[in-house]
Amino acid sequence: MSIKTFLIGKPIETVKEKYERLSKKMGLAVFSSDPLSSVAYGTEEILFVLVGGGAALLNYLVPIAIAIVILVAIVATSYYQTIHAYSSGGGAYIVAKDNLGTYPGLVAGSALLIDYVLTVTVSVAAGIAAITSAFPSLRAHTVLLCLLSILFITIVNLRGVRESGKVFTLPVYIFIGSLLLLIGASLMKSFSVPQITYKELNATTSNIFPIFIILKAFASGCATLTGIEAVSNGVRAFKAPEAKNAGITLIWMAFILGILTIGIAYFSHYYAILPNENETVLSQLARTIFSKGPVYYTIQFATALILILAANTSYSDFPRLSSIMANDRYLPRQLSNRGDKLVFSNGILILSFLSALLLVLFRGETHLLIPLYAVGVFTAFTLSQAGMVKHWIKDKGKGWFKSAVINGIGGIVTGVVLVIIAVEKFSHGAWIVLIAIPALVLLTQKIHKYYLSVAEQLSLERCLIGEKEFKHHSVIIPISGLQQAVINAVRYAKALSDDVTAVYVCIDEMETVRIKQKWDRHCMGVKFIILESPYRSITQPLIDYIDEVHNTYQDGVITVVLPEFVPSKWWHHLLHNQTALFIKGILLFKKGVVSTSVPFHLKE
Amino acid sequence: MSIKTFLIGKPIETVKEKYERLSKKMGLAVFSSDPLSSVAYGTEEILFVLVGGGAALLNYLVPIAIAIVILVAIVATSYYQTIHAYSSGGGAYIVAKDNLGTYPGLVAGSALLIDYVLTVTVSVAAGIAAITSAFPSLRAHTVLLCLLSILFITIVNLRGVRESGKVFTLPVYIFIGSLLLLIGASLMKSFSVPQITYKELNATTSNIFPIFIILKAFASGCATLTGIEAVSNGVRAFKAPEAKNAGITLIWMAFILGILTIGIAYFSHYYAILPNENETVLSQLARTIFSKGPVYYTIQFATALILILAANTSYSDFPRLSSIMANDRYLPRQLSNRGDKLVFSNGILILSFLSALLLVLFRGETHLLIPLYAVGVFTAFTLSQAGMVKHWIKDKGKGWFKSAVINGIGGIVTGVVLVIIAVEKFSHGAWIVLIAIPALVLLTQKIHKYYLSVAEQLSLERCLIGEKEFKHHSVIIPISGLQQAVINAVRYAKALSDDVTAVYVCIDEMETVRIKQKWDRHCMGVKFIILESPYRSITQPLIDYIDEVHNTYQDGVITVVLPEFVPSKWWHHLLHNQTALFIKGILLFKKGVVSTSVPFHLKE
Repeated sequence: MSIKTFLIGKPIETVKEKYERLSKKMGLAVFSSDPLSSVAYGTEEILFVLVGGGAALLNYLVPIAIAIVILVAIVATSYYQTIHAYSSGGGAYIVAKDNLGTYPGLVAGSALLIDYVLTVTVSVAAGIAAITSAFPSLRAHTVLLCLLSILFITIVNLRGVRESGKVFTLPVYIFIGSLLLLIGASLMKSFSVPQITYKELNATTSNIFPIFIILKAFASGCATLTGIEAVSNGVRAFKAPEAKNAGITLIWMAFILGILTIGIAYFSHYYAILPNENETVLSQLARTIFSKGPVYYTIQFATALILILAANTSYSDFPRLSSIMANDRYLPRQLSNRGDKLVFSNGILILSFLSALLLVLFRGETHLLIPLYAVGVFTAFTLSQAGMVKHWIKDKGKGWFKSAVINGIGGIVTGVVLVIIAVEKFSHGAWIVLIAIPALVLLTQKIHKYYLSVAEQLSLERCLIGEKEFKHHSVIIPISGLQQAVINAVRYAKALSDDVTAVYVCIDEMETVRIKQKWDRHCMGVKFIILESPYRSITQPLIDYIDEVHNTYQDGVITVVLPEFVPSKWWHHLLHNQTALFIKGILLFKKGVVSTSVPFHLKE
Repeated sequence: MSIKTFLIGKPIETVKEKYERLSKKMGLAVFSSDPLSSVAYGTEEILFVLVGGGAALLNYLVPIAIAIVILVAIVATSYYQTIHAYSSGGGAYIVAKDNLGTYPGLVAGSALLIDYVLTVTVSVAAGIAAITSAFPSLRAHTVLLCLLSILFITIVNLRGVRESGKVFTLPVYIFIGSLLLLIGASLMKSFSVPQITYKELNATTSNIFPIFIILKAFASGCATLTGIEAVSNGVRAFKAPEAKNAGITLIWMAFILGILTIGIAYFSHYYAILPNENETVLSQLARTIFSKGPVYYTIQFATALILILAANTSYSDFPRLSSIMANDRYLPRQLSNRGDKLVFSNGILILSFLSALLLVLFRGETHLLIPLYAVGVFTAFTLSQAGMVKHWIKDKGKGWFKSAVINGIGGIVTGVVLVIIAVEKFSHGAWIVLIAIPALVLLTQKIHKYYLSVAEQLSLERCLIGEKEFKHHSVIIPISGLQQAVINAVRYAKALSDDVTAVYVCIDEMETVRIKQKWDRHCMGVKFIILESPYRSITQPLIDYIDEVHNTYQDGVITVVLPEFVPSKWWHHLLHNQTALFIKGILLFKKGVVSTSVPFHLKE
């Protein structure tokens, strides 16, 4: 208990929930670390594709960046509308479910859940890659460093929303500041240094149809948009007025994201920076501008930090979304419980577990995972926008047509991008997500069906046998010897009913006679029955006897009282027969029988 | 259940134990597979050491083999006496414990237990090595093949003593027959082919003191004696008259072992066979005599089989010895239970688990393990012989002096060998065993102390509170909602006592009001109490309430009745809150409180 308190702090009272809300400044930090972090690798992802097509295609870098920023603007505007329409939190799941139906809602929800896991995995791996670039000797410990990062983020998030906001605010603003500084300095330097042209490059991929390479580069760059929907899921995390604060935060986020994306892309192109296995594009640009001085290292460090922190956006969204879906009975209901610090602890832990698992499986190789997650985001975008269009059409409130058009454009654009990404990235792993999403949808539906069936079976209206009382109560005590623990059990059994029988399964004749004599001395007025067991089974004769009693008193109930040792050290369990546990396991499935362990506490 | 029956067959009645006994022919196969199998690698182990000292030392091969056979004769004679003195089974553990005291007994027992595990590991790995020598393509699957072999031996042994005897008899006799054939043919050929002299060889190790190399070679060859004590542990496995049959079997075993050891060593020397990484000495000899024909392959195959089957000797001894030690309360008592087929199933399973673990850890590399296990055997030998000397001196029966002298010589010789092995092999891994034995002795003593303490705590003489009856019985039902499962629990609770209270922990005000109304409609005359929980903990308010009740009725007992869902599929458990389980876990440690789950069986 004290370790838990040390790690995550004292519990917070339910009524204090409103003090756990985020200001705009903190909200920007918490929710934008994911989209902003993609600035660190977005340009590089685009360049990696373009460079395959030869030097000529590299000139498409800036246009592609502009296209992405336009996309950001469209998506952000759409979500701004969503936030105001769904001020209690309107992620893609809710919007799609409300307006398009259960199935699209589940698709959007599943896509996002999968995405959040991938985001954590990719961000943490990318952040650690930035660190191991700087300190190559750490490269051998990549997986360990990744897992430690996840552990750190998990603990901070378990400590509560405000506290994670506090921890993560400064690094995010340092990152924004240092990149703005980089862009500013690049601009200053560009007045004195003329644009550098790319050296001649041979195409490594077929560039008969350059448009496909350009589309692929665009698809790669779209990873920038991941996490942009985070604010709309987390409206409830903001201080009142929630919708207004969330909306303003979203606009700011889109604005910063746009400036950084275009700025980095433009100056990478201006200084003819090429992607390279050993140094990131951002690092090359920073080195070109500042050479290897304190500013350069600040940028590198801030980049590593924001990449790791990008995971944090998923940490504020995954638990929230899964709790909403759990409340709707599409996910295990444990996900909807708030923990000691008012956060959805189970969701946090599951997110950590899944992404740690992926990190171990992929041995910290992020590149393989990046194509996976753009598919999920854009599926959710498209469904959410489509849902909003339907919403405005149903709603017909003031300015509904304009709103529907904005969301409609958003939906069409993101839909087209989704198709581009799915096609371009299909063989690079996008197919995994295209299988995983339907699989998760199927699972949520199975879970839902199960909960409905349980509710139906438990319903009080269904049958009311409740009023009937049991006519008889037989208590059976299986014993394997006669000692304090048994005496204890007999005492307890006598408090339950007048019909108490001790039952002994005979394995060894001599031992049986000895026990019988001992019993007669201490019997306490309790019957003693010996069951034969030619095959040395303890359970079978016992179950046969219970069945017999059950047939005799058909209106009755049977309690099987088992003496149970409670050792003071865990390893002592290994030194006791687990027969009682085994008997309980079997009796669990017998109707009309309840088994009870009477604990006997061992001191040493 | 049907898989179990398929694998290990139908259970055997306790009274049929005597039909499970072994004849001498079967006994020889079961108990001698281990010592005989060492013939397959004994000569090689000696040669590997000698070859390091240069060609001159190779001439010591035959004298060393003779020394080992003399040792076999001494040890066998000593054990023959032991068998007749301890006709109910007198392994080193019993003999040492009876005559020298608990501590030497535990040392002998621990040494043997460790040895049996090592024997299984080494034999299986050696057998698989023989197979992968013949089929190199299988080498990549060494560990898997080892594990499959262990699985096979485990299943056969779980099927019962007689059945494992049946399976293992034929291969053992084929091995003996084919090696006798090899020796015979070698002898015939030696009449026409003159002895081959070793080529000049450079010593690779320092041979300033050749005696040390010779002693080391002798120590390596002593692995041959492992398993020779098996018969003495397993006297009870023989048909009546047990001691006589076991004794005769032992003599036969020693005789065959002697002939094979000397024969193989002599002709390996005669044909100047040198150890080599790619082919075993036995395979070279067989190839020299028969070239690569059917006889050669029979020998190779029989060797592989006997090496794997050598493990079987441990399978008949480890479970038996551990059951004896468990009966004496030095090991967990589960080890003394006979399973469906009258064998000590838990011992068999633990032996399999431990040796599988070692095989995986050492990736099937046997060479590293061979030095480990001679230490254990000779520790047991020495203690057992010393115990027998003490036995005869106490006994003073007819011919006691002669018997004492024989065991005395045995004890001194094996003691000297033990020191030689421990010193020569210390840095080769023998130190591991020299740590493992005391560690296991310590563990057995801890276990014993624990069982004594439990027996003391449970003793009926200690205090007789048994007669006192409980003055009051309070039943508490923690509920989280109101549905069939709760109604079920309430019905059951009303059969237990008249003082039944339902308790609800309030997390959400609105929900609480709803539950309260529902309760008032179905209350069935049961009190309903609402507990406040500002920090959303379910357990803390409940425990406080239970403490309160406990204080009110100090002479009473409290039963906490928990409704428990029994889903029809295992994964459905994941969809239910495990709060009930958690509450039960906590209540287990509270005195005067018994918790009971009332199962509610879900249909789908």
